[in-house]
Amino acid sequence: MGEAKLPKRLTEGYENFLNGRFPRERERFEELAERGQSPEILLIGCCDSRVSPELIFDAGPGEMFVVRNVANLVPPYKPNDDYHGTSAAIEFAVMGLKVKDIVVMGHAQCGGVKAFAEMQRDPYMRPLAPGDFIGRWIKLLAPAAESIGESTEPLHVWAERLAWESIRQSVANLRSFPYIATLEQRGWLNLHGAYFGVAGGELMALDPSDGGFRQVAAEAHREAFARTPRF
Amino acid sequence: MGEAKLPKRLTEGYENFLNGRFPRERERFEELAERGQSPEILLIGCCDSRVSPELIFDAGPGEMFVVRNVANLVPPYKPNDDYHGTSAAIEFAVMGLKVKDIVVMGHAQCGGVKAFAEMQRDPYMRPLAPGDFIGRWIKLLAPAAESIGESTEPLHVWAERLAWESIRQSVANLRSFPYIATLEQRGWLNLHGAYFGVAGGELMALDPSDGGFRQVAAEAHREAFARTPRF
Amino acid sequence: MGEAKLPKRLTEGYENFLNGRFPRERERFEELAERGQSPEILLIGCCDSRVSPELIFDAGPGEMFVVRNVANLVPPYKPNDDYHGTSAAIEFAVMGLKVKDIVVMGHAQCGGVKAFAEMQRDPYMRPLAPGDFIGRWIKLLAPAAESIGESTEPLHVWAERLAWESIRQSVANLRSFPYIATLEQRGWLNLHGAYFGVAGGELMALDPSDGGFRQVAAEAHREAFARTPRF
Amino acid sequence: MGEAKLPKRLTEGYENFLNGRFPRERERFEELAERGQSPEILLIGCCDSRVSPELIFDAGPGEMFVVRNVANLVPPYKPNDDYHGTSAAIEFAVMGLKVKDIVVMGHAQCGGVKAFAEMQRDPYMRPLAPGDFIGRWIKLLAPAAESIGESTEPLHVWAERLAWESIRQSVANLRSFPYIATLEQRGWLNLHGAYFGVAGGELMALDPSDGGFRQVAAEAHREAFARTPRF
Repeated sequence: MGEAKLPKRLTEGYENFLNGRFPRERERFEELAERGQSPEILLIGCCDSRVSPELIFDAGPGEMFVVRNVANLVPPYKPNDDYHGTSAAIEFAVMGLKVKDIVVMGHAQCGGVKAFAEMQRDPYMRPLAPGDFIGRWIKLLAPAAESIGESTEPLHVWAERLAWESIRQSVANLRSFPYIATLEQRGWLNLHGAYFGVAGGELMALDPSDGGFRQVAAEAHREAFARTPRF
Repeated sequence: MGEAKLPKRLTEGYENFLNGRFPRERERFEELAERGQSPEILLIGCCDSRVSPELIFDAGPGEMFVVRNVANLVPPYKPNDDYHGTSAAIEFAVMGLKVKDIVVMGHAQCGGVKAFAEMQRDPYMRPLAPGDFIGRWIKLLAPAAESIGESTEPLHVWAERLAWESIRQSVANLRSFPYIATLEQRGWLNLHGAYFGVAGGELMALDPSDGGFRQVAAEAHREAFARTPRF
Repeated sequence: MGEAKLPKRLTEGYENFLNGRFPRERERFEELAERGQSPEILLIGCCDSRVSPELIFDAGPGEMFVVRNVANLVPPYKPNDDYHGTSAAIEFAVMGLKVKDIVVMGHAQCGGVKAFAEMQRDPYMRPLAPGDFIGRWIKLLAPAAESIGESTEPLHVWAERLAWESIRQSVANLRSFPYIATLEQRGWLNLHGAYFGVAGGELMALDPSDGGFRQVAAEAHREAFARTPRF
Repeated sequence: MGEAKLPKRLTEGYENFLNGRFPRERERFEELAERGQSPEILLIGCCDSRVSPELIFDAGPGEMFVVRNVANLVPPYKPNDDYHGTSAAIEFAVMGLKVKDIVVMGHAQCGGVKAFAEMQRDPYMRPLAPGDFIGRWIKLLAPAAESIGESTEPLHVWAERLAWESIRQSVANLRSFPYIATLEQRGWLNLHGAYFGVAGGELMALDPSDGGFRQVAAEAHREAFARTPRF
């Protein structure tokens, strides 16, 4: 019986889901299908395979509306005839689903941020492909790059500073959406920045008071870390 | 000392992650941080909070490069000066990470598809917001809508047919990327379509032989379903 | 007194010209300025710095009308609104200057041909620059590549075969210009293919009788070669 | 044995090369064949038979990467699906060979410039050929023509002014290539304009400080000129 093929890994993973999480979540899925979704959180993250928001935040079905693009970038508000996938998702989450929180989550060793940093250093760097969609997309990092200034330190160090600054920039770009500015002023919507360290599993949150990043659940992290010596 | 606040739900979820999955995955994260990511699968899914790919496919860190936009749409190949977030992610995954499989995953009750269907029926329908990013973004559904023709059935039925056709269209649009066409011809890259039912947890895969959708792991699904009587 | 600067090498080279060749050619230049040019030969060559036609053919002022583009390619006749620099030069030389001979001269180790060969073998190869003008330009080699078939031999060997075939293709494309076909039929215009070996200084000419390449002035070359043992 | 024929003049010229320059350059050719070319200069010149760059600058094998088209024109940066031969050569030289200097060299009595001037004056002027490739190609002179304004002086005088202005325009167009602008700003690449007088052998260089043209090696020219009384 000609069953259409998905990659073996996905078929197996789906069977794990059926035998594991699905039974626990089945009612939830039915309910969400009937009532529709009403997530309270919009998370804007990176496509990177190492930073799944649902995994890092142990989130179940219906909890987070998730946009994922390269380098978790929010473009400035600029309505025109182009197809703005990320701005459309933000509009849908904020004005349609009326989320209460927006989180922009960046991470360490981001390939998109690294590519931008390399392009800055070496103008002879070749684009990935003729269309050069990546080269144009990561130009959205330019304002953040300008505000941290020329790199004197090693490239990977500068790239990390750029990743952090770009989270601040994306949060600022969110405020360039008129309705987001209004809702935030009324206290109906909160904007957050976050950063996941990958290697050590630490999570940082952007502190609006001074623009710094502070570790989240630092103590729980220390304990978990202590319990898992590296082999 | 003012620790930056993330939504309570996320901080708690992150603590669950620290006490649950993190210890099991810690080595993996360290390795992925050192060696960099090398996922074999690019998954293009919807932002919808009910269809987390990592949850449905029980995927761990490093396994899937995930793009999520409203209605899991792939625009046709059109290089220009706009910011094409989805095309950029595709370029990065295919030409940079050299993924072996691309999966476009749609789902039931998609809000973006529903919005397009309603707009078609009622020209007086209001946009979600002044910028109308959603209205323009879902215009990408127009070719699929044309190929299934005018709706005579109830709206939600037509919307489901549109969701299915739009997956076929997105797979076709993937082939409009010259290098994707080349890599597929050489057998170095495989394109797939998938559809998640939400309510019942069933997964369908697009059958390239006739463009139909076939259930994946049908038997495992029946058994899992039997084991979880609805309360 | 602020004299505008050219690269030092060029200023010195120009002074050599003034003290060397200029005195011998001065009358010639004056005459050519008064009467205008009337070259009998149009040479279509490569931009490569190693294959100057004037040097290889010891040509003086007024003798050859020279077009040089990457990989010495002649596009097929296709009048439209684009800027066809090479076709414009051909039209000017044939219909304006009424040249008697057209020579397409290729050469060994051509970077443009090599780039095309590499792209064929490795679809992941990166373009030189975002605009990818080279990638599109060398697509003109595709018909020649098809007619010699897939490469089984080492890349540089296949690339040389491609370089030869592409000379045949360019000569064929010249005949797609209606007036060139007419003039050739009347015997007022002759089309030639040539190939310069660079390393050994040998020159080959395309033999119209069988499409093979035959060495030009083979004996003179052997003698010159004998007289210059490699140090 | 049917040896393929090249025009007699070329076969003789090649024999002169074999008996004259080849012995001196043989090692050089071998070396350039083994190591590949690495010219530091890209010269964009005219196809005109009277202005061979290698002759005027006494350049040997490997020194200059040379593009020659009608009227030494550089089109503005405009990536699309057309075959842009000149832009491809510029991309190859700048991004592939990493040249340090680009020289746009025009000259007196240019047939392409003259043709444009005549077309401006006489709208009844016939095209050279049905395809009218030349008519379209020299439209690239239009911006330069506009900036010097309508001709009141004799046509050949206006044409010379146009030739000079068009060199300025081509240098400006070079800067419309994003990577050229970047490399020039970093001081890694220098742009130059030059003009060869043909009749008297004088060479002018574009002075970036005021856009004027200044004679190069004026004294050496005066002396050479004195030494060669006109017969």
